[in-house]
Amino acid sequence: MLLAGCLVFFMQAGFTLVETGFTRSKNTGNIIMKNLMDFCIGSLAFWAVGYSLMYGESIGGLIGDVDQYSFFDSLPDMHSLFFQTVFAATAATIVSGAIAERTKFTTYLIFSLLMTLIIYPISGSWVWNAGGWLAKMGFTDFAGSTVVHAVGGFASLVAAAMVGPRIGKYTDGKSNAIPGHNLMIGALGVFILWLGWFGFNPGSQLAISGDNAFKVAAIFITTNLAGAAGALAAMFLTWIFYKKPDISMTLNGVLAGLVGVTAGCAAVSPAGALVIGLICGIVVVFSIEFIDKKLKIDDPVGAISVHGVCGALGTILVGVFATDGGLLYGGGFDKLIVQITGVAAIVAWALAASFIVLFLLKKTMGLRVTKEEEIDGLDIHEHGTNVYNS
Amino acid sequence: MLLAGCLVFFMQAGFTLVETGFTRSKNTGNIIMKNLMDFCIGSLAFWAVGYSLMYGESIGGLIGDVDQYSFFDSLPDMHSLFFQTVFAATAATIVSGAIAERTKFTTYLIFSLLMTLIIYPISGSWVWNAGGWLAKMGFTDFAGSTVVHAVGGFASLVAAAMVGPRIGKYTDGKSNAIPGHNLMIGALGVFILWLGWFGFNPGSQLAISGDNAFKVAAIFITTNLAGAAGALAAMFLTWIFYKKPDISMTLNGVLAGLVGVTAGCAAVSPAGALVIGLICGIVVVFSIEFIDKKLKIDDPVGAISVHGVCGALGTILVGVFATDGGLLYGGGFDKLIVQITGVAAIVAWALAASFIVLFLLKKTMGLRVTKEEEIDGLDIHEHGTNVYNS
Amino acid sequence: MLLAGCLVFFMQAGFTLVETGFTRSKNTGNIIMKNLMDFCIGSLAFWAVGYSLMYGESIGGLIGDVDQYSFFDSLPDMHSLFFQTVFAATAATIVSGAIAERTKFTTYLIFSLLMTLIIYPISGSWVWNAGGWLAKMGFTDFAGSTVVHAVGGFASLVAAAMVGPRIGKYTDGKSNAIPGHNLMIGALGVFILWLGWFGFNPGSQLAISGDNAFKVAAIFITTNLAGAAGALAAMFLTWIFYKKPDISMTLNGVLAGLVGVTAGCAAVSPAGALVIGLICGIVVVFSIEFIDKKLKIDDPVGAISVHGVCGALGTILVGVFATDGGLLYGGGFDKLIVQITGVAAIVAWALAASFIVLFLLKKTMGLRVTKEEEIDGLDIHEHGTNVYNS
Repeated sequence: MLLAGCLVFFMQAGFTLVETGFTRSKNTGNIIMKNLMDFCIGSLAFWAVGYSLMYGESIGGLIGDVDQYSFFDSLPDMHSLFFQTVFAATAATIVSGAIAERTKFTTYLIFSLLMTLIIYPISGSWVWNAGGWLAKMGFTDFAGSTVVHAVGGFASLVAAAMVGPRIGKYTDGKSNAIPGHNLMIGALGVFILWLGWFGFNPGSQLAISGDNAFKVAAIFITTNLAGAAGALAAMFLTWIFYKKPDISMTLNGVLAGLVGVTAGCAAVSPAGALVIGLICGIVVVFSIEFIDKKLKIDDPVGAISVHGVCGALGTILVGVFATDGGLLYGGGFDKLIVQITGVAAIVAWALAASFIVLFLLKKTMGLRVTKEEEIDGLDIHEHGTNVYNS
Repeated sequence: MLLAGCLVFFMQAGFTLVETGFTRSKNTGNIIMKNLMDFCIGSLAFWAVGYSLMYGESIGGLIGDVDQYSFFDSLPDMHSLFFQTVFAATAATIVSGAIAERTKFTTYLIFSLLMTLIIYPISGSWVWNAGGWLAKMGFTDFAGSTVVHAVGGFASLVAAAMVGPRIGKYTDGKSNAIPGHNLMIGALGVFILWLGWFGFNPGSQLAISGDNAFKVAAIFITTNLAGAAGALAAMFLTWIFYKKPDISMTLNGVLAGLVGVTAGCAAVSPAGALVIGLICGIVVVFSIEFIDKKLKIDDPVGAISVHGVCGALGTILVGVFATDGGLLYGGGFDKLIVQITGVAAIVAWALAASFIVLFLLKKTMGLRVTKEEEIDGLDIHEHGTNVYNS
Repeated sequence: MLLAGCLVFFMQAGFTLVETGFTRSKNTGNIIMKNLMDFCIGSLAFWAVGYSLMYGESIGGLIGDVDQYSFFDSLPDMHSLFFQTVFAATAATIVSGAIAERTKFTTYLIFSLLMTLIIYPISGSWVWNAGGWLAKMGFTDFAGSTVVHAVGGFASLVAAAMVGPRIGKYTDGKSNAIPGHNLMIGALGVFILWLGWFGFNPGSQLAISGDNAFKVAAIFITTNLAGAAGALAAMFLTWIFYKKPDISMTLNGVLAGLVGVTAGCAAVSPAGALVIGLICGIVVVFSIEFIDKKLKIDDPVGAISVHGVCGALGTILVGVFATDGGLLYGGGFDKLIVQITGVAAIVAWALAASFIVLFLLKKTMGLRVTKEEEIDGLDIHEHGTNVYNS
């Protein structure tokens, strides 16, 4: 389980590579720092407060008792703390991609802190705290399609909308592509994230029930098939629509499939996982196009679609594909309704909480760098350096 | 064992980095897509058919019974399936490097599918299916020097010869060096592959006999010494011949040593592993030069030599260095003859099967992109994008 | 434990990326080769001699009996050998960064060999050989803040001083910044090293006492908090002093915190680890500035400060923060004095032994490349190639 935690930790590197690769070179250093700080701040904040808020004895099913765990000088449940810390940091990191290339560093740090300290642990406690109201209702989100990814993804939606698009992204009502500076680095990031998912999903099984080798192996297979199917679906879809198999979309298809199967990786069959992956790989392409061209919200890396939309969708699909209780397996609509309820509640929380936090930050510190800083690049203005030299 | 599977999965990233780093930047995206698809297609194909063809009850020692395993809604042997899936994808991925920078994407996808669906599982069943004819003969290929690497390497030979050299590679009967665009990325790929080998070789021990800690530790040491010795041998050899320690060849020396020891990692002593590594590190340099300058087959990354030649050689050397039955340990020629027989049979199969598949593909879809596409780069023509931007 | 060894092995990739990223592109290939050779030479040297010198029955507490272990054809203690090999290679690799961009390749190889063969194992035997004089005295260096890092770091100090600064580094008594060519690669290296530390520190627990899950989990937490705290401390300090949060220093802050907590990761509380991380994150910034501007020793990657200064400091701080015997926990000065004694002795050994070796190398082979080679870059002169091409 700790080795699974290592793989999940390494996802921070994966996110950093994906986000830098899909954006311009003049902002690379800023993205590195944001991702690094997500994990550094998150490690301290989740240890000091967030973990208790999430896993302390539940108060009314809504929140954990902060006083329960004191980690300052004792060592209860360290396995779980390490593993959960990297989950919490992941939720925060998702947002950094959606608002890349124009957000103030200071403001971002405070948002990231509040994300790991409050926003993520509260909705997390509803599901993963045994006393949480969604846990009691029988809501299934095994490894966090909604608890981690949709929370990050819908916070990204609010954040990207409030920060506004990058200069030059929309001109004359038209969306202009701003190509990333290094898709090779982005692809390496996707491979690292895929690797990390083999920690994320199977590690959650270990967290719950100890070394249950048979179940763990099945989770490897469902996770892997969904990622592969997501990639294939996105590739063939872009091949049809754009006439060429698109690299960025295929990479996002991998992530969409993996995000989608995360909720149900222990509850669905391999064939079910494959179908979930296919659906998410298709949906992610339409969702990215819709958010970009119709909603005109500028999300440089597709975080809203990958993590938000596919996270929510994958969680709902557990109500269809779960071999025990899913619609397709004779379970009726009960399970599906529970899943939809849980997703709706958590997404509403993520939208509302991140709106309040970001609204306050906007009114006080401001969300955006100056026009000059954005045009020159955040690296030189915010950090006084260029990432690439001779 | 599943964590070993994770490391082997990560080899896909290593292969992608090595292949892109050793080739030109205009084709990077195409190589990323090919490597990604090897794994995505392979995951589905091997799960649906390949695994059964390889591990189903053997029919006459030649092929597994496809009907035996149905993974669609059940979960037998998931450990093994995950681990074997990444092995199968590795065999396919090897070929993509040898035919990089000029092969049609569609054709490649079909070849990759047939590789994981048919070519690899059939010869694999001869050795790793308990009922396989080579298994019964006592042929030793512990973790796939021949089953995985030589199959990929000799399929690469056929493929590179049939696709033909890149434009500008041979002019006036002379071989021109076409330097890779980023050796740093290539070196990172080699480190990742080395890491993956610690999953590949020791993981195979776990697959066979459960957690046998003592044997597993010995395999770490033999694997590591062979890789190190291969690098040293290649470096000093190029230092003598080229007057300078060559970076590319040294990196290929690591891989040659690792490929070579894969068959015998559990059967030879540490000193034996070191000698196998040294031999493979020397042979790989001569083989790359010979294939490039004498055979005039254009293999941009040296896949034929590294995986084909050193895979076959390493497997044969088990007949010399195996502490139980090897020539040097008083075992006589029996073991050596079995090893040579097995290698010859599998190499012949890989050559013949890939020739038939590629011949049919050549006559129907064509193997090669147009001259214009090759000169401009496959990324822009096949995928409509550049990997590197500002 | 072997999987922990894998993570530690992967640190070689991390070091390579950090060192190349923080230096100029014309020397990238040379750094790749040095790091690769550290591990290749180290694997052979430590297996053949170094391991016995360190872990063979101690002779007078000062040195192991070389005759005790023969690995040539037997397999005793292979777990430990693999794990220790990667530790030994780490000590050598640290030096390559400090003397990057101007040191002769041949000379470096011999230095690296002697480091893993003699310098590292001898002082290592004082602490990690049960019969070592510092082990008997009760000196605590759990996973090598001093045994590995300070030995490498203070050898770096001697090496960087003897090799002299790069051309153009100091002009008119002023220190000129020579920016690294790719901080993105450097950042990826830091993430990989952080990952590796989860092998380094917890793996050492496994090496000592088998799978002690509770202790291992605590070590993950102390290690992680120290790394995070180091990064935060360095970032805020540079924000105050340089007016901007500095990327390179923040990355070095991560490493400083990790190096610092390595000695005490099993002996201090999470809060203690956090404070050690903060102290090291602050000290590393001052130390890098001091060595660069006051001592005028040119250390392109900050290896002396990160590994030497923070390694020694972290080991001494165990005497303050150890929950069993530390000053803050009512243990008096006894523990602290033991820690200071041990650090002083090992640092003195590292300084003296590396001085002797490097002095002899300087007088015989020479340490430095020619002025022309340095200006053109080591890649083209020493290896006949460029790492980056189109």
